[in-house]
Amino acid sequence: MFYLVIDILGTVAFAISGVLVAMQKKLDLFGVFIIAFVTAVGGGTLRDLLIGNTPVGWMKTPIYILTITITVIIAILFINQIKHLRKSLFLFDTIGIGLYTMVGIEKGLAANLSPIMCIALGTMTASFGGVIRDILCNEIPVIFRKEIYATVCILGGLVYFILIQFSVDTQIAYVFGISSIIAMRLIAVKFKISLPNIYRR
Amino acid sequence: MFYLVIDILGTVAFAISGVLVAMQKKLDLFGVFIIAFVTAVGGGTLRDLLIGNTPVGWMKTPIYILTITITVIIAILFINQIKHLRKSLFLFDTIGIGLYTMVGIEKGLAANLSPIMCIALGTMTASFGGVIRDILCNEIPVIFRKEIYATVCILGGLVYFILIQFSVDTQIAYVFGISSIIAMRLIAVKFKISLPNIYRR
Amino acid sequence: MFYLVIDILGTVAFAISGVLVAMQKKLDLFGVFIIAFVTAVGGGTLRDLLIGNTPVGWMKTPIYILTITITVIIAILFINQIKHLRKSLFLFDTIGIGLYTMVGIEKGLAANLSPIMCIALGTMTASFGGVIRDILCNEIPVIFRKEIYATVCILGGLVYFILIQFSVDTQIAYVFGISSIIAMRLIAVKFKISLPNIYRR
Repeated sequence: MFYLVIDILGTVAFAISGVLVAMQKKLDLFGVFIIAFVTAVGGGTLRDLLIGNTPVGWMKTPIYILTITITVIIAILFINQIKHLRKSLFLFDTIGIGLYTMVGIEKGLAANLSPIMCIALGTMTASFGGVIRDILCNEIPVIFRKEIYATVCILGGLVYFILIQFSVDTQIAYVFGISSIIAMRLIAVKFKISLPNIYRR
Repeated sequence: MFYLVIDILGTVAFAISGVLVAMQKKLDLFGVFIIAFVTAVGGGTLRDLLIGNTPVGWMKTPIYILTITITVIIAILFINQIKHLRKSLFLFDTIGIGLYTMVGIEKGLAANLSPIMCIALGTMTASFGGVIRDILCNEIPVIFRKEIYATVCILGGLVYFILIQFSVDTQIAYVFGISSIIAMRLIAVKFKISLPNIYRR
Repeated sequence: MFYLVIDILGTVAFAISGVLVAMQKKLDLFGVFIIAFVTAVGGGTLRDLLIGNTPVGWMKTPIYILTITITVIIAILFINQIKHLRKSLFLFDTIGIGLYTMVGIEKGLAANLSPIMCIALGTMTASFGGVIRDILCNEIPVIFRKEIYATVCILGGLVYFILIQFSVDTQIAYVFGISSIIAMRLIAVKFKISLPNIYRR
């Protein structure tokens, strides 16, 4: 139940981020819906395709399509108010990233993949919806340019596997993995921490 | 036989639309061929991937690759004449959309998916070739910006499932689904109907 | 063993081409890594998805992810020196293309596909990593615009199947296929051979 609530809140946050980018690009109603949709489910879809988990996740239950449809309608109607909710949205988004990373890792474990591949899958689940969103909107994906985002997913995945290695209970490691991702992202944004610059000035 | 003829005409129309966009971008021969190819088979490929229907459809018979190759050669040779055929092309294209939507819905039913997912698959089959075409040509997909296109696929899919609900014979519902898509698109284009504007002036 | 060495050299060459494009676009560390990664494994991933070969190849062994990670680190540190290595890189790249084309063809044969589909898969394996790289960097893919690249893969695949047709030993045909691709590309670049121009001046 708790899990479901987080999943829906994450989906809502991701869908809204899609609506915001799509409306900036002046897409029409259908375009806005599709961008919201791929932002919310794109990462999980890519993960499911890569491991052969078909039909992909969002096709097995109407919950995602319904959540996203309702979110898009409300977001369009209250677009000005939503811009004031940035802080709450950022929080949902961050919780969503933490959760999706661990969901991806679990799917990788279920497919008997090695830890390194599980972390790759987790990071993809959390971050590739935004990549597809940006590609469809004809932008270089924002997570390739500035935000520390995928990096915290990778680090959170490492936290999980290191804890498991030290025989920590799986569920506890799971919670620690999610929490570390959330904490690291909040800290990174608060203190404007970014990846080391690889270019000379 | 009738089905095959429509399928080929639809493939031809989609491939030509790819050639036109690719040549506007001054791509080379190979680029034009690939864009024509993905425009024609991209939607069905995405559908097959999402439901795990592999090898994907166009790999199982040489008919699509041959049709598209011949179409591309003829289209390049007679590019100026083709521009005068816009009306016929638009008609093939519209018939193709109607047919592909229903093909996608059928594949969804065969994979035991719910009506809502079947409609999503049908819409994808009909419209995502054009999305991939535009992405590869570095444009924001045109169906996200103006044309009523995907929307008529969704409505046509609804028509099909509503008829089924009222115990209408499957084949009749199928024909009605296709016809309603064709009719709605012709009407939308004729009367310049577009999606409701979601932006304030 | 020989095969493995070529595979790694090809991966290195593809990854470096990704680093070069990504750094031109001023992506951050994570962005550079992802572009290098998709350039190196993107073609094979698409191939595996289309034939239903999941989990896709690079997930089954850590060798690719490790090779690419090390390549990216070294490439970033020695970016200026690497620019002087263009000739060696071009050679690795060309060998990689030859090898990957034949790997793709073999996978197609293993999936019982017809020669024409095997050649399509081989060409994809060799060239679609670069397509995804360019899309993610918001460019029209370079192989759609100028370089003779995919065309030599197609011709090399034809060489292979023609030899097989004349009862040549599979392994010999294999070596001839790769060599012909390498030779044709070197010749095409040396003599600036390009596809026939399809536009009037």
